[in-house]
Amino acid sequence: MEFTPTAEQQIDRSKQDPASLGNTNDGLKYDIGRESLDFSCIYSKDLLPAEDGKEATKHFFQELVNILLAYVSKSLKHSSKILDFHHPHQFKDGLEGFNLELPDQPDNLEQLLVDCRDTLKYGVKTGHPRYFNQLSTGLDVIGLAGEWLTSTANTNMFTYEIAPVFILMEEIILKKMHKIIGWTEKDGDGIFCPGGTTSNLYSVLLARFHHFPAVKTHGMCAIPRLALFTSAHSHYSIKKSAAVLGIGSDNVIVVKCDERGKMVPSELNSSIEAAKSKGLVPFYVNATAGTTVYGSFDPLNEIADICEQHGLWMHVDAAWGGGLLLSNKHRVKMQAIERADSVTWNPHKMMCVPLQCSAILVKRKGLLQECNQLCAEYLFQPDKQYDVSYDTGDKSIQCGRHVDVFKLWLMWKAKGSEGFEAQVNHCLENAEYLYYKLKRRTDFEFVFTGKPEHSNVCFWYLPQRVQNMPLGPERDRELHMVAPKIKAKMMEEGFTMIGYQPLGDKVNFFRCVFSNPATQRQDVDFLVEEIARLGCEL
Amino acid sequence: MEFTPTAEQQIDRSKQDPASLGNTNDGLKYDIGRESLDFSCIYSKDLLPAEDGKEATKHFFQELVNILLAYVSKSLKHSSKILDFHHPHQFKDGLEGFNLELPDQPDNLEQLLVDCRDTLKYGVKTGHPRYFNQLSTGLDVIGLAGEWLTSTANTNMFTYEIAPVFILMEEIILKKMHKIIGWTEKDGDGIFCPGGTTSNLYSVLLARFHHFPAVKTHGMCAIPRLALFTSAHSHYSIKKSAAVLGIGSDNVIVVKCDERGKMVPSELNSSIEAAKSKGLVPFYVNATAGTTVYGSFDPLNEIADICEQHGLWMHVDAAWGGGLLLSNKHRVKMQAIERADSVTWNPHKMMCVPLQCSAILVKRKGLLQECNQLCAEYLFQPDKQYDVSYDTGDKSIQCGRHVDVFKLWLMWKAKGSEGFEAQVNHCLENAEYLYYKLKRRTDFEFVFTGKPEHSNVCFWYLPQRVQNMPLGPERDRELHMVAPKIKAKMMEEGFTMIGYQPLGDKVNFFRCVFSNPATQRQDVDFLVEEIARLGCEL
Repeated sequence: MEFTPTAEQQIDRSKQDPASLGNTNDGLKYDIGRESLDFSCIYSKDLLPAEDGKEATKHFFQELVNILLAYVSKSLKHSSKILDFHHPHQFKDGLEGFNLELPDQPDNLEQLLVDCRDTLKYGVKTGHPRYFNQLSTGLDVIGLAGEWLTSTANTNMFTYEIAPVFILMEEIILKKMHKIIGWTEKDGDGIFCPGGTTSNLYSVLLARFHHFPAVKTHGMCAIPRLALFTSAHSHYSIKKSAAVLGIGSDNVIVVKCDERGKMVPSELNSSIEAAKSKGLVPFYVNATAGTTVYGSFDPLNEIADICEQHGLWMHVDAAWGGGLLLSNKHRVKMQAIERADSVTWNPHKMMCVPLQCSAILVKRKGLLQECNQLCAEYLFQPDKQYDVSYDTGDKSIQCGRHVDVFKLWLMWKAKGSEGFEAQVNHCLENAEYLYYKLKRRTDFEFVFTGKPEHSNVCFWYLPQRVQNMPLGPERDRELHMVAPKIKAKMMEEGFTMIGYQPLGDKVNFFRCVFSNPATQRQDVDFLVEEIARLGCEL
Repeated sequence: MEFTPTAEQQIDRSKQDPASLGNTNDGLKYDIGRESLDFSCIYSKDLLPAEDGKEATKHFFQELVNILLAYVSKSLKHSSKILDFHHPHQFKDGLEGFNLELPDQPDNLEQLLVDCRDTLKYGVKTGHPRYFNQLSTGLDVIGLAGEWLTSTANTNMFTYEIAPVFILMEEIILKKMHKIIGWTEKDGDGIFCPGGTTSNLYSVLLARFHHFPAVKTHGMCAIPRLALFTSAHSHYSIKKSAAVLGIGSDNVIVVKCDERGKMVPSELNSSIEAAKSKGLVPFYVNATAGTTVYGSFDPLNEIADICEQHGLWMHVDAAWGGGLLLSNKHRVKMQAIERADSVTWNPHKMMCVPLQCSAILVKRKGLLQECNQLCAEYLFQPDKQYDVSYDTGDKSIQCGRHVDVFKLWLMWKAKGSEGFEAQVNHCLENAEYLYYKLKRRTDFEFVFTGKPEHSNVCFWYLPQRVQNMPLGPERDRELHMVAPKIKAKMMEEGFTMIGYQPLGDKVNFFRCVFSNPATQRQDVDFLVEEIARLGCEL
């Protein structure tokens, strides 16, 4: 099937009212050219696999791709809006004719295309250079191409027989990641899974099985009461994993951090000793490489020493920091990561791969398989004609798995390791630029002192009124309300987006993160001015 | 950005050799029309967000879409090949120039397009009408459009603020599913998650928390030794969940089935009594609606009575059977499903939604949140300007979540409930057609007697040599090797694909499943003839 229509395929579209095809988006002209069909008379049943559905399918996708590429282009435009905020009840009331309810009878393709436009119109442009709201930002067009191909291939990482190419790509990418971490050829296993929280859950599961293999069949009743350790600044997924795995969230011992959000090794050591004296059995330490809020790196080498000394599994949650391993300049922040037993690394964060793309990397070969396999022969037949060690379904906890690896593979081909390095360095340069910019201003105050290690810059905006207040609880109370108010206004206006949160004894502050290579200094300038403009009267 | 190029944008492509852009696929003419660029001089850095990257991006995607739509069209063609099988070592040796290794320096876009073609060429066409290998088959073009949009929007179900439209679509679809199950307005909660195994894991997690809320913080040490129940024909994910959750796979009590693969209620009852007498505490029963191999439906009403009597959580794994709820003709097979406390339902199976799309549906409102929430304020700020009950991150175990709902929403709009009903009925009619066809032949033998309840048809192919053997272990040994041999030849030839497995005391047999609406009777005929052709000499 060709995508570009020939002259014979040109169809009169005089019947069609372009305006009916959706809301005009900020001057983006709607014109699908000379070869469109009247979609109001066509239904999904007229598309492939219908006998004569080729042409209609082609035209429908051409139209769709117009909409999608217009969105991409707009997403990457600095001055465009990021969002057009509406409350849930507004959508439910059938906002401007956008009807979310599900019909009994089919809608025509014209209506579907309007729905596609509306879905994008009322969504959030996470690829926008001024979207700083999450650790995952940006829209890499090669990654996007990878996702389109992945969904067209529509297969499953369950077995080699149904996903041979993707299974091999996963193996090659995992090996590359092992090498980058610094593991030797004989070490290294892993799997891509749905997000960093799941990757971290895998790490706790593996550590428990490594120390107490009986748990798999006999459960927690057969093994001692466990304790695991993670820092006060670490991600909540460690506690979540302990709750899910039946260890109990209270048995996660929270280790103190220094003022930069780094785990204090001596505190780890004394926490381990204290747990032991209470009769708990320590088995696992999570060190974070790139904390969610401060972007801090725990001292991996010292933590590895302690783990070695106590015989504990060392996990490094580098969901956010992992990308820095690709930068010769910045990878030093993760020195000794090769001493870890397992590593979480999300390419969908700092490497700007489309969601989702997260790996759990395991040093000990074969452990994933041992820990998770149940050898259900009705699912994994041992008597197939190929090497069935390539069937990955039984080493996962999900059984079937989405293909998350192709987009990353294609981006790696497109950029090379060097391209990823440049991209990571650029993001950290943006953070440095913001840091020095704010340092010169009196209406902004940093949450922690010193240059950020990752691309997280944490700060308060201080309206004049708050600047004039003496330090103390009253000022804190006022300051706590500033960020939410600015954020609410910011979302109503829709030109930039940044997250805020309280943390420990720090009242609500903004956290700016850079993971979008499209972001430039002008965008950083815009953010700062926008916060000041929206906040100065508060 | 427009997709259809104007005259000024037409670029001389005389330099470009079309043949260089990939292997010619079975007569699919490669011709991208008059407006292509010379991609061998263009790199990903020249695409958006590069300042003048619009045109190159448009052309690159036009080319990509050509490749993808050609693949779709070919996937849906009855006579085309499903796969071109190669062993892992063949790929690793750089098969026909397809190099999977990751470079340090970028490849040009021409190479990337070749890679995209090769990835599809050496993959498996899971949308092909003669692909019967998995429960998830087919390629719905509207679902595909939904996936392309989803990946373009590239957001996360974490909070309402970054995915307002998708969050509301999820709510609406979940409500629709609750209604179809038969729950009242006041009941019903749920979440989409990565696959049926994860959905089943959620069900065990929720049941445990419902009965023993202390487990979340204190772990399994604080609660009695648990037992859960599932049938011999159920999916292995129940055992996997018990292993992961720290309950232990041995504490999953396997309940006997009748010869049709249905759980025997009296056996369930006596298993519960036996577990109690051993000091175990029963808390959960999994009933399957559509088993993986036989497609059997457990007797839900009787199981519900037993669960009620013993105060146990009743889960229905309708991952495969769920689609039948949309058919007035077939939903009777799941009578009493509304009595379940939770239901797994995978639209990516019987409803032909692209992978992945799986829901865990929970009767008791609020339980998901209570069970999983950790209220990390640094992630979920309570002081936002909108109703934060729409932030779903903390009710999941994954934290961030892929948007799996839009493709299903768009398909529902496109087909209406009626369209799904027709699709499901069509698949079951195909199964019936195969059943009656095989019944008339002496070289095929059914694994269980009687008409299948779902679209699973299980059978042996009997080469003349085996037909002539007397029943007994020797014949079984020979028969066991028939299916793998046929399958291996089938994969080498590549025109159809079907799975086989042993089960219990039954030696390797074929399981044909129908979930692809594109499959027609001619495809069923082809499968039968192909098996006989490949197997007759064995």
